[in-house]
Order: sequence, then structure tokens, then C-alpha cells
Amino acid sequence: MASREEALRRIAAEVGFDLDADIKVGGNYVPFIVSGDSIHVSGQISRLDASVVLEGRAGAGVSIAQAQTAAKVSAIRALAVLLKATRRLERIKSIAHVTVFTQCSETFTQLSEVADGASDALVAVLGDAGRHTRTSIGVYQLPKNATVELELVATT
Amino acid sequence: MASREEALRRIAAEVGFDLDADIKVGGNYVPFIVSGDSIHVSGQISRLDASVVLEGRAGAGVSIAQAQTAAKVSAIRALAVLLKATRRLERIKSIAHVTVFTQCSETFTQLSEVADGASDALVAVLGDAGRHTRTSIGVYQLPKNATVELELVATT
Amino acid sequence: MASREEALRRIAAEVGFDLDADIKVGGNYVPFIVSGDSIHVSGQISRLDASVVLEGRAGAGVSIAQAQTAAKVSAIRALAVLLKATRRLERIKSIAHVTVFTQCSETFTQLSEVADGASDALVAVLGDAGRHTRTSIGVYQLPKNATVELELVATT
Repeated sequence: MASREEALRRIAAEVGFDLDADIKVGGNYVPFIVSGDSIHVSGQISRLDASVVLEGRAGAGVSIAQAQTAAKVSAIRALAVLLKATRRLERIKSIAHVTVFTQCSETFTQLSEVADGASDALVAVLGDAGRHTRTSIGVYQLPKNATVELELVATT
Repeated sequence: MASREEALRRIAAEVGFDLDADIKVGGNYVPFIVSGDSIHVSGQISRLDASVVLEGRAGAGVSIAQAQTAAKVSAIRALAVLLKATRRLERIKSIAHVTVFTQCSETFTQLSEVADGASDALVAVLGDAGRHTRTSIGVYQLPKNATVELELVATT
Repeated sequence: MASREEALRRIAAEVGFDLDADIKVGGNYVPFIVSGDSIHVSGQISRLDASVVLEGRAGAGVSIAQAQTAAKVSAIRALAVLLKATRRLERIKSIAHVTVFTQCSETFTQLSEVADGASDALVAVLGDAGRHTRTSIGVYQLPKNATVELELVATT
């Protein structure tokens, strides 16, 4: 049976994300905090690496499909952080909550559809343990003009 | 003494929300996750049923009173999810946190006043157990052009 | 060795925040909820006192330095709530998560830089226990036209 890490490597390869690269944070904070059975993961913008950010505004130059890919990249980054936090993703029991913030135009309402790009990735990698509660919000701006930012809380 | 469910039914009737209808989610996620003593509830937009969404932008066509009703509807939906999760709302000990996102105009600042529509509903149904911490944010867009989206974490 | 409260008093004095003033909330909710080992703190806007709010839009009349000060003020307010909740800030073991919402212009992307104003304050007061995960979001409006609103979850 394929491990969850193998599943993560497969979908990371689909979008060109290097799972073995360092995960850097852009400020005075940390990628994750373990607190009891919870692992809090910092907001992950849709960036592939140090130089490439999936950027722009859904509904204004960024299509739904592109925004879904951005959401998928943010989810992959969060899973990469969880892999680092747990060493083995099999330790994850559930994803208590995911918030997907999408930078969008004034009239773009398909925020749930965009967020599905992240949700599908979580379930593809973690199976039933990837089921989660979710909040989808359309925002005015995100760091580095990213199309998506995603935060989550996992439990072990 | 009236049960909390009776109180919920009373305020649901005030806005025309059918507490016995199925709660559907619009994507690859679940309405709630129980994790230890916590129940995470997915973001609830201000929709009455499958076809009617309280929509639009507070401060631009949507009055404060209408936005407060939208916040109340979102809170009622969250309470309906908690009822499903617990079977008996008497099991709820506290609402650790509520976030109220209001879709608003560029200059609409009365976001706390809108959020009170949700807070009052939580306290009306749960009494002291409905006391909560809160964050009120004005956002650019919400799913289905909803006026309000609310997420919460309860403890049992 | 200086206590954490002394460190908090020092940085509060830098921005003119009175740590001994009452902390009021602007609606039907409470400043904090203790739930097991967690303390949830309500969203804190960048206000110095009952009459002075650091307000406006980052990138449109509000400079990065001013927005960073606003983030610092919000962090100081959250720490003041934690002081009230714990009596002794030495009881804080970690800050599981901080979300920094910045009211900004349509093209302002330096949201992480603004949030550092809050992160630096948390670490200055709490040391290693102030390390946290973080999400930085640019939003359309905040209560009272505040430049920043910050929420956090601490653990004891």
C-alpha cells in the first residue's frame, strides 16, 4: 500500500513542487506549533519555490482552474509542513479545520470551488483522515500578491 | 425549563430557517469535526435553504439590520450543526471562538454591530455557555455573494 | 531577570498604551475564553484607548512603518488580555497561532512585513514562548476603520 508520503510526492510532482526543499517562512514566526494533539500550521501562500508565486486575482486574470491549482499548491505546502512536523503522515488522525483565503475580484463568488482544489489534495493524500471542516473567504490582498493562502489545524 | 433546542427552534422560526432540513456542504469537506473536547464547525454562509441566500454587500444595498439578520442566520446554521454533532445542545460547555466575516463596502466599518446579530443568537440559545471570543472582519467577497460567513469552535 | 510583565510594560509605554486601563469589548462577547490548556483571545483592533484608533488603509495613506506600529498595538492588547487571563504571563507556554488582518489598498502586498510588527512584540515579551504560527491577510475593512486586527490562541 502506498504511504501517504508517496501520495504527497505524486501530487507535488504534478504541480512541480519540490518536497525536499527547505520550507522557509517570511517573517518572525515558525512553520508549525505542536500543542497537545494539535498541530497548527502557518498560512501557506500559493508559491512553488523561492521565486515562483502563483499570483493574481481570481476572476480578474486568474481563471477558476488556475485558482484551484493555487489552492492545491497551498495545500501541498501545508502537507509538507505536516510531514516535517510528524516525520510520518500516518500519524495524522484528522484535519480539524482548514481556512482558504482567495484573492479575488469584487464579483467573484466561486470561492468554494477554488477551495476544493485544496480539499481534494488533502483527501487524496490523507484519505479519511484528510476530511476537514472548511471556511472559504474572498480577500482583498494576500502576501506577495498570491492567489491563495491556506491555514490548517491537524490532530495526531 | 425550555431546552436549548427549543430556544434554537424559536429563533430559527423567526428567520424562517427549517431546523429539520439536511445540512449540505458545497464541496469536498464536512460540516463538523470532533477533536477531543472541541467541535470545529465549517464556515456557514447566510443562507436560509438550498435556494435563498441573504446576499449582497453591507453598506452598499444591504443595511445594518439586514446584515445583522444575515449574521443571525449564519449563527443559527452553526447551532444546527452543533445540534447534529451533539444530539443535545446541553452538552456544549462553551464557544471558544467565533469569527464573523461580513462582505461589505469599502467604507463600512460597523462590523462589530453586524457580528452582534450572531453573538446575540448564540447567547439566546446557549445562555452562559454561548459566551465566546470573537473576531469581526470585513471582506471583499464570500461564497455565493453571501453577506455573512461565520465559523466557530465549541467545547463539550 | 525581568518578568514578562515588565517587558510588556516597556513596549506598551513605547506606543503610549496604558496596561492598567480596563479592556472593553465592543459587543456581546468576552475578551478571552479558557478551554483546557488553550486561551482564545478575541480579535484586537489597533486602538490605543477609548478614543484613539490607529486607522486607515496600509498602502493608501498609512505607511508600512505606521501599519507595523498598528500591528504592535494589537499584539500588546492581546498580551494585556493574556495577562488578565493568567495573572502571570510566565504561565504562557506557547502561542499556537496568530492571525494578522491588515486593512490595505488593492495593491498592497507587504502583509508579512506588517505582521512582523506583531510577531516581534510577542517574542520581545514572551521570549521562546512567543514563537508562533501565523497567517497574514489583507482585508477590505476592519471595525472602526482600524489598520490592523489580530487574534491569537495561547497555551498554558
